Amino acid sequence: MPRIPPAWPGMALADLDTPSLILDLDAFERNLQRLPESLAGRQIMLRPHAKSHKCPQIALRQIALGAVGVCCQKVSEAEAMVEGGVQDVLVANEVVGAAKLRRLAALARQAKIAVCADDAGNVVQLDAAAREFGVTLDVLVEINVGANRCGAEPGEPALKIAQAIATCKNLRYAGLQAYQGGAQHLRKVEERRTAIDAAVAAVERALALIEKAGLPRGKVTGAGTGTYLFEAASRVYDELQVGSYIFMDADYARNDWTESGIPRFEHSLFVWTTVMSRTRADIAIVDAGLKASSVDSGMPRVADSVAEFLKASDEHGVIKVNGAAGLALGDKIKLIPGHCDPTVNLYDYYVCVRGGKVEALWPITARGAVW
Amino acid sequence: MPRIPPAWPGMALADLDTPSLILDLDAFERNLQRLPESLAGRQIMLRPHAKSHKCPQIALRQIALGAVGVCCQKVSEAEAMVEGGVQDVLVANEVVGAAKLRRLAALARQAKIAVCADDAGNVVQLDAAAREFGVTLDVLVEINVGANRCGAEPGEPALKIAQAIATCKNLRYAGLQAYQGGAQHLRKVEERRTAIDAAVAAVERALALIEKAGLPRGKVTGAGTGTYLFEAASRVYDELQVGSYIFMDADYARNDWTESGIPRFEHSLFVWTTVMSRTRADIAIVDAGLKASSVDSGMPRVADSVAEFLKASDEHGVIKVNGAAGLALGDKIKLIPGHCDPTVNLYDYYVCVRGGKVEALWPITARGAVW
Repeated sequence: MPRIPPAWPGMALADLDTPSLILDLDAFERNLQRLPESLAGRQIMLRPHAKSHKCPQIALRQIALGAVGVCCQKVSEAEAMVEGGVQDVLVANEVVGAAKLRRLAALARQAKIAVCADDAGNVVQLDAAAREFGVTLDVLVEINVGANRCGAEPGEPALKIAQAIATCKNLRYAGLQAYQGGAQHLRKVEERRTAIDAAVAAVERALALIEKAGLPRGKVTGAGTGTYLFEAASRVYDELQVGSYIFMDADYARNDWTESGIPRFEHSLFVWTTVMSRTRADIAIVDAGLKASSVDSGMPRVADSVAEFLKASDEHGVIKVNGAAGLALGDKIKLIPGHCDPTVNLYDYYVCVRGGKVEALWPITARGAVW
Repeated sequence: MPRIPPAWPGMALADLDTPSLILDLDAFERNLQRLPESLAGRQIMLRPHAKSHKCPQIALRQIALGAVGVCCQKVSEAEAMVEGGVQDVLVANEVVGAAKLRRLAALARQAKIAVCADDAGNVVQLDAAAREFGVTLDVLVEINVGANRCGAEPGEPALKIAQAIATCKNLRYAGLQAYQGGAQHLRKVEERRTAIDAAVAAVERALALIEKAGLPRGKVTGAGTGTYLFEAASRVYDELQVGSYIFMDADYARNDWTESGIPRFEHSLFVWTTVMSRTRADIAIVDAGLKASSVDSGMPRVADSVAEFLKASDEHGVIKVNGAAGLALGDKIKLIPGHCDPTVNLYDYYVCVRGGKVEALWPITARGAVW
C-alpha cells in the first residue's frame, strides 16, 4: 500500500495526482446493469470473474444485481473475496500443492467453495485436504474446449476425472468448467461464434459420456465478455463467468461487436496521467509507463483524443500529439488501458470518480494475490 | 500486502508456495560485489537505480559497498527509500505537478534530494516548492543523449534551463542527467559502444556551452548495466546509475557481453512456479502468468532447462517441455524473468534463499510507487 493514499472523497479530479487508476462510476454502473439486462428472460446464472477487479466492493455490487457469486483464479484471490464478504466462490482453475490445498479447504469452512480439476491424482489430494478440514468441496472437471491450456480432453479423460471425484467422500462432482479463453479476442463476430459452437460441441460430448456413466449432470460454467451471449444461447451452459464487461479495455474495444447482440459496454477504467516532458514538437511524455498500464495486449489508448500512445518504458509513456489539444506540460489526461486485468493488479486503490469529483476509494484487496 | 506472508526464515525452498519471487542471495551478493570491483581504480561515483529493486534493504547494501546514494524515478519511490534509511536520493526524472513538487521538497527536509528538469517553467515551480519548505534542491538538467524521451537538446535549450536553475534562490545547478536508455539492450557490444560515444559527444557539447556561460560544471550522471563501463571510460561521466546488475534478467542476458569488459552478472532473481496442469504430452502449464512475471521484454526463461516458456496469459504460463525432466504435475521450477523491474513491481516481498532454505523476507516497500 502506498504511504499516502492517492486521494480522498470530495477531491476534484483535476487535483488528483498521477498516475492513478480511476473508475468512472457512472459508466461502471451502466456496465454493471447492462450485462444482467442483456440476459433478461434467459435461465442462466451469472458468476462474474473477480480476477478482473480483485475488489470485494465490486463483487458485492455484482451479487446485489443477481450474480450467484464470483469466480477467482487463485486461492489468495478467493481468500480476499471471502474476507470481503463474498459467500460463494468458484476457483475456476486447478489448485496444486499441499499448502494451497489446505488454504482452499480451510476457506470452505467460511464460505461455499468450488474448484476445478483436470488430473486424477490432484483429485485425491483435494479429497485429503477437504477431509483434514472436515469440509465437502464442489469439484468441476475442467475440459479443454479449444483454448489448449488447462483441462482434460472432453472424452474419456474428462469422464475418468469426473468418476474419480464422485468416488471421493469429501468431494462432490459439480459439473464442467468449459471456458474458451482463446475465443474472447478473435476480432470478428463469426470467428468468435464458430469457436463457441466448437466449445459447445465439446461440452455436449463430455456431458453425454458423463450422463451415460450415471453421474449427475452438474452445471456447465464458462464464457467471457467477448462471447457470453453465444454460450447463453447454447442451452448447454448454465453459468457465465464474464469479467471485463465492467471496465472494457482497449483490447476488447478492438473486437467487432456489430450483430453479436452483446451490448456496447463503455470504458469505465482509466489511468490518469500527467504530461511531464514536452521538449519535442509532436511528442508528449507522460508519467505512466508499463508499471502504470499493462502493455501485454497492446498500448493504452488516449481517451477522447487523436493523440496516439506510441510506446511505454518502465515509468514513461511516449505520445504522438497529432495536433491534439490538452497535452501541454502539466496537463492531465486519461488513458484507456490495453488490458484491464493486469493493469488493475498494479494498483492498491480504485479512485472512484463521478461528476469530476472523487466519490470513494475502493481498496484492491486481492492485488498481488498470485498464489 | 498478502494476507499471509509467503514464507518464513528456515523454510525449505521446496516447501515455498508459488508463484513467489525468490532472490538467490549467493548470486545476488556476488553481483553486488562484482560491479564496484569492475570500477576499481577509476574515479567515478556509483549511484545504483532503486527503480529496479524498490527495496531499502538492497539500497543500504549497495551503499555499504561504496555507492553514494541511489536514484529513483518517482517521488513515492524516493519517499520509500528515505523512510528505509537512505540519506541521498537523486530523482533521475522530471517531477511535474504541485502535489508531487511539495512532497519532493518536504522530503528534502529529511535527506539530500536532487531532481532533474528539462523545462524552464518547471524550474520556477521547483523553486517555489523548495522555498515553501525552506530547503535547497539540487537540480540537474536532463539532456537528450539519444533515447529521445525526456530531456532538453544538449545545446542552447539545455543551457537555458541550467541558467534558469542558477538564478533560483532555492535551487542549486548540479549538473547533467545524461542517460542513454535506448542503448542498454542493443545486442552487439559495438552498437552499444557507438551509442555511448554519441551520448558522450552530446554531453561534451552541453558542458562546453555551460562552462562558457560561467556556470559551475556540476556532475554528469547516467549509464545502465548494458553500457556502464563505456561511460566510466569516457572521463566525462562522474556517476553511474546502474540498476539491473544485481538481478540480471533474461532480456539483458540476450546482450552480447564478449569484449565489453563488463563482468558476467549472474541471474539472481527468479519466479518460483508450480506445474499445475499436465494434460498434454509436451506441454506443461505453470501457475505463473503475466501477473507473476512481466512479459513486456519477452517471455521468461526456464532456468537450467531445455524447456521453453511459450506464452503467458494472466495467471498461466505455457511451457514446451522439450523432453526436460522436472516438469511433472506439482513440480516446482525457477523462471528467469524477461524484465526484472516490472516483475519486482508485482510482488510485496523478496523471498531470500541460500542453500535451499529461506534466509529472509525483504519487503518491496516501493512496490506500486508510481506517483
